[in-house]
Amino acid sequence: MRDLTTSSVTDAVLEQMSGTPDPRLKQVMASLVRHMHDFARDVSLTPEEWLAAIGFLTKVGQTCTPARQEFILLSDVLGLSALVNLLHDKTAVEIGTESSLLGPFYQQDAPSFAMGDSIATQADGPELLLYGQVTDKAGKPLPHALVQVWQTDSKGEYDMQKYQGEQMDMRGNFRCDSEGRFHFRTVMPLGYFIPMDGPVGGLIQAQRRHGCRPAHIHFLIGADGYRELVTAIYLGDDPHIDSDTVFGVSTSLVVLPRDNDPDAPVKGMPAIRYDFRLGIASGDETGRVGADPSQILSTVE
Amino acid sequence: MRDLTTSSVTDAVLEQMSGTPDPRLKQVMASLVRHMHDFARDVSLTPEEWLAAIGFLTKVGQTCTPARQEFILLSDVLGLSALVNLLHDKTAVEIGTESSLLGPFYQQDAPSFAMGDSIATQADGPELLLYGQVTDKAGKPLPHALVQVWQTDSKGEYDMQKYQGEQMDMRGNFRCDSEGRFHFRTVMPLGYFIPMDGPVGGLIQAQRRHGCRPAHIHFLIGADGYRELVTAIYLGDDPHIDSDTVFGVSTSLVVLPRDNDPDAPVKGMPAIRYDFRLGIASGDETGRVGADPSQILSTVE
Repeated sequence: MRDLTTSSVTDAVLEQMSGTPDPRLKQVMASLVRHMHDFARDVSLTPEEWLAAIGFLTKVGQTCTPARQEFILLSDVLGLSALVNLLHDKTAVEIGTESSLLGPFYQQDAPSFAMGDSIATQADGPELLLYGQVTDKAGKPLPHALVQVWQTDSKGEYDMQKYQGEQMDMRGNFRCDSEGRFHFRTVMPLGYFIPMDGPVGGLIQAQRRHGCRPAHIHFLIGADGYRELVTAIYLGDDPHIDSDTVFGVSTSLVVLPRDNDPDAPVKGMPAIRYDFRLGIASGDETGRVGADPSQILSTVE
Repeated sequence: MRDLTTSSVTDAVLEQMSGTPDPRLKQVMASLVRHMHDFARDVSLTPEEWLAAIGFLTKVGQTCTPARQEFILLSDVLGLSALVNLLHDKTAVEIGTESSLLGPFYQQDAPSFAMGDSIATQADGPELLLYGQVTDKAGKPLPHALVQVWQTDSKGEYDMQKYQGEQMDMRGNFRCDSEGRFHFRTVMPLGYFIPMDGPVGGLIQAQRRHGCRPAHIHFLIGADGYRELVTAIYLGDDPHIDSDTVFGVSTSLVVLPRDNDPDAPVKGMPAIRYDFRLGIASGDETGRVGADPSQILSTVE
């Protein structure tokens, strides 16, 4: 028998995991244990802190519902989601438009709309037109690409927060025309606090972070043979554009609505034009870092 | 605005956390983010793996009840609890008997028994006598020390598993005599599988680990002015004595029952004598790495 020390305990764990038949699981768990133990040694984690972490993580898990994914939110505010997204982009054969986070508010069964419709079926607020074209990296139009869009209303709330998943609003799917063009109406999104009533909100408050995301509109765009694009466009006049709590903003994704845009397919409201370029995937990988919360929870129960 | 890369995203997170007023929270979270990001970069964590982890952790949280602490179990099987325990022992002014894990089956309101009673109020099985003395490190008896004991029954099950927290058995508290002596009866504990029906059990199976803990009896011993001792004694003839799934065994804690022990205060059954030496705490810290699961959950709801 070997008596364990603060350093040898790591080797003992690795040894006990060494028979893992799946080589990738073996590699990931070995690295996880090494880094987690290094962390505990680095800060000399105390029993009280460890117990607080156990209670915190338990609460994060128990806060999850089909309409709320508190673990994704935790990953988001610690920059892990952004990092996984950046690592993932490196695996693509070709990158198009920059990606951003899927986040915890995507829903996979959003309604389909006809071109020009408004996704604001319940919410009201200042109208906004979104239009653009989906192309490959070189600018070749991608006919009939599918554009999935979701955003907060003009008060900064997602439908999943307002209706606890019972009703959808401010989200929908559009099929581009034969030139890859799309346009739809919506209302101006507002930046918002991440949900502050749960354990992740408590952490953000303890860290004196503002907890805000700048106003944005999420897109998930797919076309056969191209890499699914998960991204968002961010409104450049939002006061938190430089300090997104979940680290999703890139310069190339920042936009400003334009009044009296002569090219806009619908007049009489501010318009944002954004053209999306799809890259090429390596193998059958998608661009998603995330999933519909109800799908995650259904694997749990 | 700074566009983030797989390396600069870590600095962006640290910068956003840099205003944390509590210096210890700031230090711990900064180290956690650094090590977690290093892990993700080290293995190039994929979106599918990240999502599997989100689902896994959600399930761990949702498996927790007042009678079951799946996050403590996860920490245990990854050796983190053992490491925190070892780090914690280093902070003591003086160490007595070696410590071991509190584990997820401690309950703080166990019944009190009179010396010589049996803690097996429901379970049956081969009888066993436990006796010994609680002293300081030099051997000075500690009068009226409180000995809390808990163990599985002779089938390898805790009361919290058998009765879902509705009823207690195989646990109890004893007050030592004026010489620090204690003795009580119980039944022979059996080694056991950690709970295999939850997500942690699934991980253990995917890693082809046996998932067993060698048979043991938990002790939590306290006396005024001394460091609370959390430990366990392990039965040396258990086939898993060298491969505890939660890394709790130390050589000095391994025992064997003795038939016809001439010193045993009760005859007619195998006896184990173990004398416990209490160390001295630094400040008001306890020796506990863990807590009663119902207490952890009550902070959640």
